[in-house]
Amino acid sequence: MAELFERLNQPSVVGEILAGVIIGPSILGLVVPNELTSTLADIGVIFLLFKVGLESPPASILRVGVRALLVAVLGVIAPFVAGSLLMLAWGGSGVESMFLGTAMVATSVGITARVLSDMGVLNVLTSRIILGAAVIDDVLGLLILAVVSGISTGPLNYLSIIVTAGLAIGFTGFVVLVGPPVVKRVAPRLENLRVTHSLFISALVTCLGIAVAANYIGVAAIVGAFLAGMAFAEVAEERPTMHKQMSGVTEFLVPFFLVNIGMQLRLDVFRDLSVVIFGVLITVLAVVTKMVGCGAGAWGLGWKRIGQVGVGMVPRGEVGIVVAQIGVGMAVISDSLFGVVLLMAVATTLIAPPFLRILFASERMGEV
Amino acid sequence: MAELFERLNQPSVVGEILAGVIIGPSILGLVVPNELTSTLADIGVIFLLFKVGLESPPASILRVGVRALLVAVLGVIAPFVAGSLLMLAWGGSGVESMFLGTAMVATSVGITARVLSDMGVLNVLTSRIILGAAVIDDVLGLLILAVVSGISTGPLNYLSIIVTAGLAIGFTGFVVLVGPPVVKRVAPRLENLRVTHSLFISALVTCLGIAVAANYIGVAAIVGAFLAGMAFAEVAEERPTMHKQMSGVTEFLVPFFLVNIGMQLRLDVFRDLSVVIFGVLITVLAVVTKMVGCGAGAWGLGWKRIGQVGVGMVPRGEVGIVVAQIGVGMAVISDSLFGVVLLMAVATTLIAPPFLRILFASERMGEV
Repeated sequence: MAELFERLNQPSVVGEILAGVIIGPSILGLVVPNELTSTLADIGVIFLLFKVGLESPPASILRVGVRALLVAVLGVIAPFVAGSLLMLAWGGSGVESMFLGTAMVATSVGITARVLSDMGVLNVLTSRIILGAAVIDDVLGLLILAVVSGISTGPLNYLSIIVTAGLAIGFTGFVVLVGPPVVKRVAPRLENLRVTHSLFISALVTCLGIAVAANYIGVAAIVGAFLAGMAFAEVAEERPTMHKQMSGVTEFLVPFFLVNIGMQLRLDVFRDLSVVIFGVLITVLAVVTKMVGCGAGAWGLGWKRIGQVGVGMVPRGEVGIVVAQIGVGMAVISDSLFGVVLLMAVATTLIAPPFLRILFASERMGEV
Repeated sequence: MAELFERLNQPSVVGEILAGVIIGPSILGLVVPNELTSTLADIGVIFLLFKVGLESPPASILRVGVRALLVAVLGVIAPFVAGSLLMLAWGGSGVESMFLGTAMVATSVGITARVLSDMGVLNVLTSRIILGAAVIDDVLGLLILAVVSGISTGPLNYLSIIVTAGLAIGFTGFVVLVGPPVVKRVAPRLENLRVTHSLFISALVTCLGIAVAANYIGVAAIVGAFLAGMAFAEVAEERPTMHKQMSGVTEFLVPFFLVNIGMQLRLDVFRDLSVVIFGVLITVLAVVTKMVGCGAGAWGLGWKRIGQVGVGMVPRGEVGIVVAQIGVGMAVISDSLFGVVLLMAVATTLIAPPFLRILFASERMGEV
């Protein structure tokens, strides 16, 4: 499917996600998502983000820090407010509306990262802004989820929210600032270990360790993996073998991530017309608000770059699904609303890549 | 643990297996073997054997074919006869004795392959003999298992055994003879696909596909993976990137295979002294008969090479465990006898690597 889509001049990610739709429960039912497929998918997206981090020296991301912050904040506010209001207007309760708004907030950087990486344009200015904004976006999404869950379960505990925020920001800052110099210093020693491929193994272990730590603190594991990759970026620049070894891992595991997204889609929600209409409405809103919010954050960079940043932040992927799952677990989100979020998550993921390819096509020539 | 053992001048595989013993149910109980760990282990050993096959051009294996056949046959007869007789003498039933004999037959080439690959001596004459003999050994073990299972469930069905034999030999021969020329011809086209890393992805898909096909026919999946690797060996020789990408996959997944072996060991069998004594006896017998049988097959190559081949075929690893599990499932093997087989499998796996390192140490200098 990836090859087919490439030949149709469409991104391979779309082909791989559709492969998941086809083999999944919706159509052929050859594979039912289970613990094994979802774990391989999780490991896949973790290593994907690590690999993307490996190609993103921290200095290049920090340089666009203020801009990324602006993009992230505006790109969070717009879909949250619009999504919540639409749900309220549709007759939802206050808590339900806020949960839907939250599910529409979190950008899933995996898809965009894979498209940009496939195109070889990770070093372009707007790619850096997107990556930086995605990290900040994740921390903001985490905070909103904490606030919304807090409101829905009882009186708001301000202290715990401040602690959550402090931990997330502190952790991210710590890894970004302390990671690279430590890795640079330790790398030669790691290479001198007796075990073969010791530097590469150490990188994998660090990636998984920081992903687990991030998850423990409440930040997404993929953000932790991205930060870990950034820490190794300078070291990897001088060692092309590391990139090749990493591509070996990601080429095997990332398809599990993409196919797993496709398998999540349940076509049977389409039986209820009102759900479909609401789903399409939410999807359109999710795309428009993210583009407008993030695009506004990129104001002044010129239309092409505004478009690149806006579209790059559109995919919600698995993050929105996770938020909705939490809502279902807390019994504040109904099954049909969960279906709507699934549709929105998969649809935004499928819509963005073709436009990303068009918008980034000229960057491939080496223009920065 | 791998690093620690390398520093003690011991093979890293032993360290990684012991790591499994330590974190497994026997000691710390941090990880209980489950579907996920065993699947990662299975994928790990499949890619390990594929990688070893990638470094073994078929011509070099076929050249030692007759010798490998002799090593395999004698190395199968000796432990089967001796193991069955000891069990009979110990008071076991006929069926039980034959099952134990069968569990002692199958060499697990994974461990030896990893040690030889770590040492960089896969291209040595005796390494080729060991790899070739391991493939034949697996087919022979499959046939013995078919015969023994047949006897234990009722009258022997000669036809089905002939079909099993024919399929296994036909499949192996087909992949060995047809695989390399087909891959050589198709490889340039695969490289021209639009998907990035298309040749590497095709290799992974072929490896998994042939492993599944092998398993379906009754040959071990790892033998299928090894044959698939051989088919790509010539193509990979001119493409160093492929080896690096493959090492990326194996460095991540193979430790799961080794740790999983360690986790299988149940130290609580040691509570019953008679089980321990019998287990040690069986282990000694398993080591001695394999060394004598395979060593006899290598007769005339000089003492050092006889030793290399004999020791290289000693590890039973997971293959013996699988045979014993089938016996337990058919209710012809008791739980304590299963414990004995586990002990034998793990112990032979731990014993061989240090001696392999000593025996192959001089080959590292480039002497063939």
